[in-house]
Amino acid sequence: MEELLYAIGISAVAVSAMTGVLEAGRKPIDLFGVVLVALTSALGGGTVRDLLLDRRVFWLEDPTYLFAAIGAGLAAVALVRMVRLPKNLFLIPDALGLALFTVLGTHIALMLDVHWFAATLLGVVTGVVGGVLRDMLCNEVPLVFSGELYGTAAWSGTLVYAALLGAGVADSGAALVAMTVVFGLRMAAVQWRITLPTFVAR
Amino acid sequence: MEELLYAIGISAVAVSAMTGVLEAGRKPIDLFGVVLVALTSALGGGTVRDLLLDRRVFWLEDPTYLFAAIGAGLAAVALVRMVRLPKNLFLIPDALGLALFTVLGTHIALMLDVHWFAATLLGVVTGVVGGVLRDMLCNEVPLVFSGELYGTAAWSGTLVYAALLGAGVADSGAALVAMTVVFGLRMAAVQWRITLPTFVAR
Amino acid sequence: MEELLYAIGISAVAVSAMTGVLEAGRKPIDLFGVVLVALTSALGGGTVRDLLLDRRVFWLEDPTYLFAAIGAGLAAVALVRMVRLPKNLFLIPDALGLALFTVLGTHIALMLDVHWFAATLLGVVTGVVGGVLRDMLCNEVPLVFSGELYGTAAWSGTLVYAALLGAGVADSGAALVAMTVVFGLRMAAVQWRITLPTFVAR
Repeated sequence: MEELLYAIGISAVAVSAMTGVLEAGRKPIDLFGVVLVALTSALGGGTVRDLLLDRRVFWLEDPTYLFAAIGAGLAAVALVRMVRLPKNLFLIPDALGLALFTVLGTHIALMLDVHWFAATLLGVVTGVVGGVLRDMLCNEVPLVFSGELYGTAAWSGTLVYAALLGAGVADSGAALVAMTVVFGLRMAAVQWRITLPTFVAR
Repeated sequence: MEELLYAIGISAVAVSAMTGVLEAGRKPIDLFGVVLVALTSALGGGTVRDLLLDRRVFWLEDPTYLFAAIGAGLAAVALVRMVRLPKNLFLIPDALGLALFTVLGTHIALMLDVHWFAATLLGVVTGVVGGVLRDMLCNEVPLVFSGELYGTAAWSGTLVYAALLGAGVADSGAALVAMTVVFGLRMAAVQWRITLPTFVAR
Repeated sequence: MEELLYAIGISAVAVSAMTGVLEAGRKPIDLFGVVLVALTSALGGGTVRDLLLDRRVFWLEDPTYLFAAIGAGLAAVALVRMVRLPKNLFLIPDALGLALFTVLGTHIALMLDVHWFAATLLGVVTGVVGGVLRDMLCNEVPLVFSGELYGTAAWSGTLVYAALLGAGVADSGAALVAMTVVFGLRMAAVQWRITLPTFVAR
């Protein structure tokens, strides 16, 4: 179980780094900038979570995450220069990354005796903040605000996770269901363009 | 005294969440985004203060702040949809929030033996950073930079606070005077459009 | 040696504060905003480094840095109002600041037993983040992304630093060589407009 979680975490970091490269690639940014955006995108959410929890930052604890992010980022750079990728190709692993980061973040917060509701928020932070920082660096209104269900998908999943744990379901089972909820909601939102109502004050 | 400070802190958080909703409402942002901006606006300043002071983040220590921010944010959403609020309605509680956050932040820093000058800056951070993050998320030049006296009002108040404490005045008295200074300067600045000279390099 | 490092650190903070004033001066920002941008520019990189390393923030540990930043910022305000400065005047001390911050940041991380590769990144963070935050506050695409070699110069220098230390070179010698690499690369990049290839995804 632990080893599986570890492999999942590494994969999520790599995938997020790749999405950072795709985003940065639309701007007049040089190669170093691309690497910086990739690292921010991949490690930002978990870093903010660890700072808030006063926990040693995960990629300083274990630099494997760092290498995974840089390797995946450079691979994405090479890939994008060689073949024209369909934009949608990354939506599936991105949704997977969101699901993994969110539930993992909630799990870590709960292990540190954080109130369950705050823990669900820290899970959302883990899943979402990397992308928000990425978009802020690129000087855009963060995608999480204007696109199809994203943060909402993440939060729904973590609330399901907390509810299942509260009902006595085993951790691995609850995590699996919660990840499925996040991934399923996000994929459905992309497929059928489901959005929350946009809120504009009069 | 402690209970009064607690009630004041909760109120300031609630008010700041509402100002976040008003700001986010001018952008094409969905409901989840509005909640996120409300939370950032309400909790951002205190969170950065606690990180800098290497102190447990206040809304993880006591989730009541979290519930106050979310409740107030949702109430603001409902309110804005029902009635057309005059924009100025929120200026008074916002100035109150600035006064409370700023003096409270300085107080906390001084209790942790921070140099008095650094403590006044941490107070300003507590009062101002939530709004700065809110404006950065919404991709605008932070209001604190271009509007009527804001950060200056906060800093003046904390300097008065530190000076009174240095002169031997009791904490509660000094805090009251300092909050009055912040609130009064900010209200006067709004009323008579007082600004610091805008600085433009040639 | 220690005293020299300290003097270097103070100078770097002062210089970075001045560059912040120059940047902020191009925007319609009031005097308080200028001070805020100067402080962010001067202290931002080291602050993020200390937060990531779970170390007491350097300007709370020793407020001299704070006074240096504010003093230099105000001096820059006065200077800019009196004489028309050539824009290039600040490029040399800015490059010096980048060199000093970057190597100093790597040095501190290595002393705390961080993996050498992560330490080089923390050095880059120390050197670069202040400017990134400054540009984000001023709502511009961070200069580090679009200009001549900047982050790349810093990273090259820290990698040389780590390699020399790994080869058994004494710390002061390795630091001197590394700072020269950062400073030289950055100056050469400015002089001959050397850029990394801009990466734009097709």
